[in-house]
Parts: sequence; C-alpha cells; structure tokens
Amino acid sequence: MAEDTLIEEDRYELDKETVDAIVEAAEAGDAGGLSQLMDPLHAADIADVLEQVDLDERQSILKLFEPEFDGEILSEIDDSIRDQVIEMLSPEVLGEAVRELESDDVVDIVEDLDAPQQEAVLEALEDSDRAVVEQALSYPEFSAGRLMQREIVAGPEHWTVGEAIDYMRARDDLPEDFYHMILVDPRYRPTGYVTLGKILGHKRDVKLAGITEDSFRTIEAMEDEAEVAYAFNQYHLISAPVVDENGRLVGVITIDDAMVVLDEEHEEDILRLAGVGEESSLADKVIATTKRRFPWLAVNLATAVLASLVIAIYEDAIAQIVALAVLMPIVASMGGNAGTQSLTVAVRAIATKDLTGANVWRVIRREALVGLVNGVLFAVVMGVVGVIWFGSVMLGVVIAVAMVINLVVAGLAGTVIPVTLERLRIDPALASGAFVTTVTDVVGFFAFLGLAAAVLI
Amino acid sequence: MAEDTLIEEDRYELDKETVDAIVEAAEAGDAGGLSQLMDPLHAADIADVLEQVDLDERQSILKLFEPEFDGEILSEIDDSIRDQVIEMLSPEVLGEAVRELESDDVVDIVEDLDAPQQEAVLEALEDSDRAVVEQALSYPEFSAGRLMQREIVAGPEHWTVGEAIDYMRARDDLPEDFYHMILVDPRYRPTGYVTLGKILGHKRDVKLAGITEDSFRTIEAMEDEAEVAYAFNQYHLISAPVVDENGRLVGVITIDDAMVVLDEEHEEDILRLAGVGEESSLADKVIATTKRRFPWLAVNLATAVLASLVIAIYEDAIAQIVALAVLMPIVASMGGNAGTQSLTVAVRAIATKDLTGANVWRVIRREALVGLVNGVLFAVVMGVVGVIWFGSVMLGVVIAVAMVINLVVAGLAGTVIPVTLERLRIDPALASGAFVTTVTDVVGFFAFLGLAAAVLI
Repeated sequence: MAEDTLIEEDRYELDKETVDAIVEAAEAGDAGGLSQLMDPLHAADIADVLEQVDLDERQSILKLFEPEFDGEILSEIDDSIRDQVIEMLSPEVLGEAVRELESDDVVDIVEDLDAPQQEAVLEALEDSDRAVVEQALSYPEFSAGRLMQREIVAGPEHWTVGEAIDYMRARDDLPEDFYHMILVDPRYRPTGYVTLGKILGHKRDVKLAGITEDSFRTIEAMEDEAEVAYAFNQYHLISAPVVDENGRLVGVITIDDAMVVLDEEHEEDILRLAGVGEESSLADKVIATTKRRFPWLAVNLATAVLASLVIAIYEDAIAQIVALAVLMPIVASMGGNAGTQSLTVAVRAIATKDLTGANVWRVIRREALVGLVNGVLFAVVMGVVGVIWFGSVMLGVVIAVAMVINLVVAGLAGTVIPVTLERLRIDPALASGAFVTTVTDVVGFFAFLGLAAAVLI
Repeated sequence: MAEDTLIEEDRYELDKETVDAIVEAAEAGDAGGLSQLMDPLHAADIADVLEQVDLDERQSILKLFEPEFDGEILSEIDDSIRDQVIEMLSPEVLGEAVRELESDDVVDIVEDLDAPQQEAVLEALEDSDRAVVEQALSYPEFSAGRLMQREIVAGPEHWTVGEAIDYMRARDDLPEDFYHMILVDPRYRPTGYVTLGKILGHKRDVKLAGITEDSFRTIEAMEDEAEVAYAFNQYHLISAPVVDENGRLVGVITIDDAMVVLDEEHEEDILRLAGVGEESSLADKVIATTKRRFPWLAVNLATAVLASLVIAIYEDAIAQIVALAVLMPIVASMGGNAGTQSLTVAVRAIATKDLTGANVWRVIRREALVGLVNGVLFAVVMGVVGVIWFGSVMLGVVIAVAMVINLVVAGLAGTVIPVTLERLRIDPALASGAFVTTVTDVVGFFAFLGLAAAVLI
C-alpha cells in the first residue's frame, strides 16, 4: 500500500456548505430545516458552528434551535463566547442544559463565568448537584480537585470479583465513564485498583487484591492540573484516584480530562512562544485581540529600540560605509532564528521534563557547539557573498566573524535564558522569546558594526 | 484555599541526585546498588534516565542492568537513541524484552529501525506474534492500521449482558487495555459498542443492543493518525473500532495511543514553527542537530539577503540620512513579530479545524483590522520617538506611516499564507514562518526607506 493513499484531510472538518446552509435556515426562520441540518452533528461540531459564525448569525441560530439545545454544546463551546451564548438562552433552556451535565463539566463551565451568570447556572441545579459543584469550586483553579469527578466506584480490599459485580449491579448511579474499581482500606485510603476488563475476565470467587494493576498511582487534590496531565501522559494512566491531604479518596480523574488539559497546555506554550498570550480564540473581537497582542508588541518595540541604540553608536561608520547598513540585518536575523531554534527545543524539553539539572550542562554545551558549527558554515557563505557583492575581503571577514559570534551566543542564550526563567518559576514559554532576540540583535549589531568600525575605518 | 498552595513543580521530574547516583553505581560496577536505585522507577522514567546521560554512561548502565531490562523501557525510549540501545543489548535480552510487549508497541519500535535490527526484533518474536506485527507493518506509516491493536473483544448484536460476561470469562487472551465490547453484525461489521461499566452495571438478561453508547464511531484503517487523534479529542472517544475498506472490524484504537499521537502532532507543530524540523531530541548529537537546523537557517539567510537587496536600493538615501539605518530595523522587527502572532493563531486554528472555509474571510478581515489598530498605536509612539530622537517631524511621519503599512500587511500575510499553504496540502507550520517574515522584512524596508527617499530627500 502506497503512503499517498492515506485518508488525510478534511474528514472531520465542518464544510462551508453545511455552515452556510445552517445560517441560511436560521435566518429564514426555517426551524425544521435547521433541525435536519443540526441533528446529525455531534455537540462538539455544533459548538464549532456557533464559534465560526458571527454574532447576529449565532443569535438567529440559537433563537430557533433553543428547544433542542443540549447541555453538552455548552460544555464544548469556547470560553470566549460561552458567556454570550448563556446570555442568549432562556433561563428554562439553560437550566435544562446544565442539569444534563456531569458535575465536573458544570464546574468547567461555571468557573469561567461572571458572578451573576455563575449564580444563574448554580440555581438551575438540584440541591445535591449544586453542593457537589460548590465543593469542587472550593479547590483552587487549575488544581486536580477542580478537574476530578466526584462519582467514585470503590470497594474494600477484601472483596472478590463476584462482590464487586453485585455491588455495581445494585448501584443505580454508576458514573458515565469509569474504568477501574478502586480498592480502599478501612480509612478510605486507596490501596490499588482493578480494571473492569480484569473483573469481567475472572471468576466470581477471585480476590480483587490479587488482580490489581502495577500502574496504580494516586494524585493529590492540590496538585497542578498540568502535572496531572504530565503524569497521565508519562505513565499511560487511564484513570487515577484523587486523595485529600490525609490520603483519603475524594474523586477520580480520567484520561479524557487529562487529554483536554494536555491540549490546553500545548496551546498555551505555542501561543506564548509567539507572543500571543493565552486563550486567544478566533471568535474574539478585534478590540479584545488587539489588547491581548499589544503588550507583546510593546515589549518587542522596546527591545528593537535598544538594538537601534547600538546601531546609533556606529552612525559614523555607517555614514562612511553604507554597505554596513545593507548587511547588518542579516547578522541579526540569523542570530534571532538560531536563538529561536535553541529556545523552542529547550522550552519544549522543559515542558516534557526532559531537560533537568542532570543534563543541563550537556545541553548547553551542545547548543553552543551547534551554533559554532552552523556559524562557521554560514560565515563562509556570507563571507563569500560579502566579498563578491561589495568587493571587499575585509568586509567579508568582518561579517563572517560576526556571524560565528552571534550564532554561538544564540545557542547559549536560547538555552540559558529559558532554563534560568524556569528556575525563577517564570514560564519559559512566556518571556524567553523577547530576551533571546534582544540578546541576538544587540550582540549581532555590536559584533558586526564594532568589528567593522575597528577594522575597516 | 489560596491559589499559591497548588503543588506545581518537579513532582514527576527526575532529580539530579538520583541520576548522578545511578551513573555512579553503574560506573563502579555496583549491580546491587544500581538495582536498588532503578527498581522504584517506572519504565518511562528509566527511559528518561538513559536519554539524559551520555553515551559511555548509557553503556555502563545497560551492561549492569541488562538482566533486569524490561520491554517497556524499549517502548518508552526516544527514537533517536533506541537503535543505539538495541545495539547494546544481547540478543537474548532483546528477545525477552520484545516478547513481553503487546503487538502495537512492537510495531511502534520496529517501524523506526534499520532493516537488520528490524529482522533481529522480528525473529525474537513467536510465529503468531510476528505474523501480527508484519500484518500491521503492511499498513502505511502514520495510518490508523499501524496504530491499532489487533486484540479485539467483540460479540454478536443479539447477545445479553450474561452472554458477554461468560464469553469474557472463558477467553484467556483478553487484551491488557479495553473499555468496550464491540457489537458486530454477521459480516463482522461493527454496529455499536457497550462500555464495560454498563455491562457490569446491568442484570445478566439485559440485551447489549439496548445499552450501547451514542458516541460510537468507526475509524478507517487507512485514515491518517493525526485525523484519528483529532477525532478522539473532538468527540471524547475512549476507544474506537477500526474497519477495513469493506467496513469489517480489524482492530481497536484506544485513547492512550491517540494521546501519544496528539502529543507528537503538537511537538511537530511547535518545532516546525520555530524552524527546527521534526523529531529533534536532546539526546541527538551535535552533528545530527546541526544538520537538521541548517536548512532552515539557509532559507532564513536567503530571505535576509532578499531584504538586504531592498536596503541596497536605498543606499544613497541612507548615506544622506544615517538615521534611516538606525530606525529601519524597528519597522521590520515589529512587522515580523505581528506577523508571527497572526501566523501562530492561524496555524493552531487550522490544526484544530477551527479555521475553515466558513470563517476564513472573517478571520482575515479581523487580523487586518487588528494590524491596523496596533499599527496606529505604535505609529504614534514611534512617530514621537522619531521626532524627539532625531528632531525631524517628517522622519516621525515616515516611520509612523511605514509602521501602519507593515502591521496591516503582517496581519494579512500571517493569515493568508498559512491558509494558502493548507489549501496546497503543505503543512502550514512548516513553511509559513519564512514566508511571513520575508514579506514583513521586504515590505517594512520598502515602506520605510521608500517613503523616506520620496519625502525627505
């Protein structure tokens, strides 16, 4: 089978025709047609439709589709327009939608809302559900306690397969998603777990304690959700019991929730590295987007001005040899790119805990050496270009030397800066980029113009 | 509870002391000490240790630890050193290690090896396992067929809960990880599935067909694994049956495999955006790393030279007003940063299928407007700086106008370029960066120097 026969694209993408037809039906007030178009869609896809249309269209769709509105749509929709959508729903529809959801999904919705909307949602819940949600909200944001579901399937360590099956059959409130029966000691501390597959695969008289999983690990309720996601990914967990400070079982986190967190962490890293800030969404308005990007551009302006001050020192040299002005951005640009390469590898390795105290010096040495080798290669290329273009051997030598210096510095800065920020408990994805390009710009201009001023004039 | 009490860092990180102690024990030939240090570690952590130490240390550790070497370590270790580790193991240890693994893990290991090593691993397997692995390898790389496990738990649609339980109890080769019983029609085409939780929660006489899940979806064996990961993430799947071109059940993909793919896709995007190429690892050698980064820097050099050619056009203007050389990198740098912001948001939105034909024009318009608003804001700032620094109102006006032009162009290029590449079936993360900064550099220098030459001279 040839590789190019892979089914690659657009399989799960909403096509423009569907979205257009939905908008058309909504604006024509054709409730039947709208239902017919929306019915085959998963709640996650309906949420995507609502995100992709504009404000007026969103309103028309919701007005007509309201009677069929499902709680899951609310849980799938992007934070940036969720409050707007909640505003558009009638209190009855909102109440109905929220009551359908599991407690951890309600928590996920409620935590991002303003106080009045939060109250509206909480009031729509039944008393017992509200108590569960409020208890979850008592844990800090981004903690395992917020992430976990409180529906637990647990039994004493001495149970047999048969007792476990009888217990589960007798319970009428089994959670939607659960993959293990957790074993607890008399003080309700988890001591192991058994997969449902093992329970189904063994005879009724087999002891649960004899068929537990090696992968068993507990999560503390106060643990950062990013650490939880890392543990799931690193140790291939499917679910993990969550314990309080006394080691007692208080909830369960399942892999699907960990996957969502992992996805968000990645998104945060990739956006922060590009200087976009968090939670940027295509559904955001122009003003919101401008506001979020402005501070990063302001930082960049400050560093660009700093680099310009370096150039200003060598105004006289540039006035005498204009070729310097032509060539200087090349040295800075190459340094910036090489620095970004090192930086991204380092930030990613820090996130996956592959760059630690144990190998940091080896990595720094490697990055400096990579900078040196690439620096020498590009120095030769640029030296030749410089000689041919401007007919000056010394100019070629100057740009070559400046290139080597800047690429070695780029490798060093690209590793040392994120590692240092991490030690200072600052997210390296957040701030490293500005620091690294400042260093490569300043060093690039200094090395090239300084050498030129010393040698050529 | 205050937010700062979250347990945040280093919880799952290997500490330097442990790694140092392991290396010390290995180099001292202290097999007992080494065992004691390694025993509490998960296979994934042992793999991390082997990745973080250098070549000699890796060899000493493996030599001493070989008798306890576990197949899972091989499956966890980074591609970049896996062939090296396999080389270091004796054929007996390698055979033992490989025979412990499930078929999909063996496939994952084998597919990246050279032909001789591939054969060595395949020969170590039992005949039936080897056949399974070879059949998986007949699917193209990155296909669902490669990703799936072939161990299936399925039954006819008419079965009851009791029949399902009896079937599972009777089978002695149930897979390690499975979460559903798949229902198939007489032609072995999947028609639905039932969670193990539902089977355990219902009485023996309940029909399986009455308790199936709405989330049921099948995956085609020839589907791209990236699409599979997207489907798991979008539709919150835990496992999904894989079918051949006739719709017949051939395997199962579980969420943990999808999570690994999702993680790899993210890594690829983040590294490609930074111009690092794929599969870069901290364990790579200097030469391998240099080789991988060189082409991206070469492309950057070409674009930097292109920008320099634009500057060269205005050499005379710069010779007359050296301030132009001082200020010009600011305009280019701001454009490059604004373009990278738009680009990253667009690349990410394309990856999550949030940027589609349905909203592309709205997004392009928004990015241009964001560029305009930020452009005007920074134009005012830079105009004032230009006037104060160089005492020329016209120079201030020139840099202000150039800034607005370049930031609008940056917003447009940052969206149009990745969208166009995506349409051309080129990964937008791979090539967009170079294109966008070329555009912002060229436009930035043209706008600023061109205006200056026209107005100031």
